[in-house]
Amino acid sequence: MSGRLIGIGVGPGDPELVTLKAMRALAEADIVVHFAKNGSASQARTIAASHLKTGVEELPLFYPLTNEVPRNGAVYRDALREFYDAAAAILAAHLDAGRAVAVICEGDPLFYGSYMHLHVRLAPRYPTQVIAGVTGMSGCWSAAGAPIAQGDDVFMVLPATLPEPELERRLTDADAAVVMKLGRHLPKIRRALARVGRLERAIYVERGSTEAAVMLRLADKPDDDAPYFAIVLVPGWEERA
Amino acid sequence: MSGRLIGIGVGPGDPELVTLKAMRALAEADIVVHFAKNGSASQARTIAASHLKTGVEELPLFYPLTNEVPRNGAVYRDALREFYDAAAAILAAHLDAGRAVAVICEGDPLFYGSYMHLHVRLAPRYPTQVIAGVTGMSGCWSAAGAPIAQGDDVFMVLPATLPEPELERRLTDADAAVVMKLGRHLPKIRRALARVGRLERAIYVERGSTEAAVMLRLADKPDDDAPYFAIVLVPGWEERA
Repeated sequence: MSGRLIGIGVGPGDPELVTLKAMRALAEADIVVHFAKNGSASQARTIAASHLKTGVEELPLFYPLTNEVPRNGAVYRDALREFYDAAAAILAAHLDAGRAVAVICEGDPLFYGSYMHLHVRLAPRYPTQVIAGVTGMSGCWSAAGAPIAQGDDVFMVLPATLPEPELERRLTDADAAVVMKLGRHLPKIRRALARVGRLERAIYVERGSTEAAVMLRLADKPDDDAPYFAIVLVPGWEERA
Repeated sequence: MSGRLIGIGVGPGDPELVTLKAMRALAEADIVVHFAKNGSASQARTIAASHLKTGVEELPLFYPLTNEVPRNGAVYRDALREFYDAAAAILAAHLDAGRAVAVICEGDPLFYGSYMHLHVRLAPRYPTQVIAGVTGMSGCWSAAGAPIAQGDDVFMVLPATLPEPELERRLTDADAAVVMKLGRHLPKIRRALARVGRLERAIYVERGSTEAAVMLRLADKPDDDAPYFAIVLVPGWEERA
């Protein structure tokens, strides 16, 4: 009898934004798996810490590289593929042994999450359940109290890595938007928003649902420093009814 | 001393997809407010039922009209504006009396939710907290086990009310998409997806995170019947690493 794979969204950062379903799954898991950078605690592990069973077996999966090589190059892509293949093989051994294998994920497992790489490798072969979580972006606009989209709004998630003209075109084409993965791209985002006339309403957010949250109008941000996981909210909705 | 307003996301349908933060806020609320159609129980109320304090005061807000008049006309717009103004005035009286007023919302309060209409009217005047929730679309792609977006994907939420050529243009321009509010628009969505070559991977979902869930490949759906709240998922991600 084979085990089962459970992808568990643990939400955007605040341990209270974990769902009852996630807590129950964590309580039933035989092993808890999380992704982490070498030398750092996994963000998902930190969020879920207070919900883990005492002494539960854990398996951290350390990314093989992060910023050492270009993310769009073949070296990075091949290294990551080997890493996910190897990780899936390790999890498959636990599944073959009949265990409940929980992979915890910041935010929502199937929305820009590393879990997806394990899911596509294992879900066709093992009973699998995915537990939806509150996304990082929901955590951010809720903390900012910023109504993001309403009615027939077209809403877009845009990676900050897009070329500047394309960012500008897409921001013009969206009623509401979230720009993700800011890092060194912030000056470009600022210019694109200014040119499409949306800089004034844009909101800069770091770690939205935690006590270390930083939130301010992007126009008021005095520098261009931004961590990789900071985002910009472009609310699409003003009072219309 | 004035009260406080709390917008509470109760998630997509499964009562276990409610967060601890939402449960705690419900336990502390002096009055629980929910939107409903005349004659129907509010979906948010149904989801939160098992988490409400016994005998807590409740205030249902019944929409003045739903399908009797065109949604894009002035009659509908004016009636809704008067309804939200009156509702905000009622809540303001409770807030002035120092009470904790919880508005429960299906999904996430600031993402296509009716709560936003109260938020913009009251948040400038009263202490306000918004508790993020799992969105309906997260509930759907999790139930379907469909990885939706990854890496540098551009993700879009598109209302099914868009004109067919614009739907087609936007579906071409998105790596991943969710089409919302299907209702009578399903034939149009089907045609647009077929023309941009994405019908084969599209997934039709009704009530994704409940026991009454309906999920199938849109191409396999034998009819064009769809409730207003059904959605189509257009996953953007195939195994790439």
